[in-house]
Amino acid sequence: MNAGESSIHSYLTISKERIEAALAHAIPADWQVPAQLRESMRYSLDAGGKRLRPILVLTAAEAVQGEAMAAASAMPVACAIECIHTYSLIHDDLPAMDDDDYRRGKLTNHKVYGEAMAILAGDALLTHAFSLIPRAARAGGVSAEIAISIVEDLALYAGAAGMVGGQAADMEGEQGKTKIEELEYIHLHKTSDLVVFSVTAGARIGGATEAQLEQLARFARKIGLAFQIQDDILDLTGDETKLGKKTNSDVEQSKVTYPYLIGLEESRQLVAKLTEEAKEALKLADLKSPERLQQIADYLVGRDH
Amino acid sequence: MNAGESSIHSYLTISKERIEAALAHAIPADWQVPAQLRESMRYSLDAGGKRLRPILVLTAAEAVQGEAMAAASAMPVACAIECIHTYSLIHDDLPAMDDDDYRRGKLTNHKVYGEAMAILAGDALLTHAFSLIPRAARAGGVSAEIAISIVEDLALYAGAAGMVGGQAADMEGEQGKTKIEELEYIHLHKTSDLVVFSVTAGARIGGATEAQLEQLARFARKIGLAFQIQDDILDLTGDETKLGKKTNSDVEQSKVTYPYLIGLEESRQLVAKLTEEAKEALKLADLKSPERLQQIADYLVGRDH
Repeated sequence: MNAGESSIHSYLTISKERIEAALAHAIPADWQVPAQLRESMRYSLDAGGKRLRPILVLTAAEAVQGEAMAAASAMPVACAIECIHTYSLIHDDLPAMDDDDYRRGKLTNHKVYGEAMAILAGDALLTHAFSLIPRAARAGGVSAEIAISIVEDLALYAGAAGMVGGQAADMEGEQGKTKIEELEYIHLHKTSDLVVFSVTAGARIGGATEAQLEQLARFARKIGLAFQIQDDILDLTGDETKLGKKTNSDVEQSKVTYPYLIGLEESRQLVAKLTEEAKEALKLADLKSPERLQQIADYLVGRDH
Repeated sequence: MNAGESSIHSYLTISKERIEAALAHAIPADWQVPAQLRESMRYSLDAGGKRLRPILVLTAAEAVQGEAMAAASAMPVACAIECIHTYSLIHDDLPAMDDDDYRRGKLTNHKVYGEAMAILAGDALLTHAFSLIPRAARAGGVSAEIAISIVEDLALYAGAAGMVGGQAADMEGEQGKTKIEELEYIHLHKTSDLVVFSVTAGARIGGATEAQLEQLARFARKIGLAFQIQDDILDLTGDETKLGKKTNSDVEQSKVTYPYLIGLEESRQLVAKLTEEAKEALKLADLKSPERLQQIADYLVGRDH
């Protein structure tokens, strides 16, 4: 591990801790809502994960503005995207969807709280995300105009033309039928769209120009796709202990993946190529402090979990 | 039927038609999303109903501003609340929730498209609602500041502290256990909260003061509760043909209702009392053209379907 790697790992760890502290306030323990509902929401929100999407919100804000202050203004939006990501996992795990009993080594939401409450907890987290963006505007540092653009983007990237659309397309896919273009559609929408939202929402708060937003959206789209292909690769080759989940689950569930369609080696090359293209777009965005975003892109290819 | 009644009926019919035309544009037939998902969203959105919530958005905007122009600016928000109402019906009908096969005489969403697609269509409609509010701001007539307040209100009234919270509390209720205070909590959140949102969002667009918003919220809270109690009464005493659904379903499903808890006659008196209190609040709001809102309040008590 060289110095740059060590530095990015501690940056990610510190950012994750800051986000988890903010999430605890975003859904406070004494919130006046039915107790089971609140507990069910918190259970999945507390279940950990890399917090990659909220980290990208904070990092993009700081990269554009060049000052740490931007990241503080962006925190409610960082919490919002984690609420969206968490709701999508709760609904994806439902018996009618992927029917998963475990996620990150813990029982899935519906295994603990029942299906009905899991559906409602997902609905409530999705709705709650949209209450956090006006909060960013009220706290200052984010104008009403920027806040309403972020609301519009979130609804676009998380909705039928974005993440939910990717999930709907994924449900219809099957081995021997799905083509590479369809798999790219699924990955771009299921995964990349929330990454694009995270990077561009943070950049908007940092004061990005339209030209910068465009390059950053390209950057995010490519690292989102690389991230998902790397996930497919790790499912085949990874270490179960490090991953915190079973490997070969895609094969067992007959899922269509990049390694299945184009082979393992070509998938690895594609991840490297996408990462290079992402870093080029990042250069063109001409940010004040692009270093952390670049390190995150490198980290995503190098990771083993 | 007297002249006032006839006039409110044609007003409601014309408003419903305008809203249904706008809804067709809100989710266009050529929208580039997975076809099954789009069809599933449209299926439930097209299933009819009184469109009471969106009508209240338009009517409140016009009542405050005193001009029809306000209603046009408010149309995207009217469509948004109908998307929220529709998603809540799709998710409520799921096998894990109320397990209903029919709604308004048509098969429920999951009976036609399957459970997984019904969950996703609900998620997509909920998310889509939040894309329509920024659209109102872009189309003009609604400032970014007002739009972001409306986003915040929608997330509040539709979320864990609002409609979803009411639904969660309802799931835990049962005959012989639920008390009148709990039933009031359920009705206020499951039903009144979206009515409060509709009236206050329209009023914000019409340019309401904080004092007017406060009285209008009281008005809406009371007519929302009266509406729900009237629903409970009609389930016991109504005409199945007019209602378009089976009566006595609450009794068959052992649901806790106002007539069950306090009797039919006292429930009727409560509806009348709430309606009077609503009309008082409406007077105190001191609007330019309050007549239609008052007629809607009267209609809700007098209706037989």
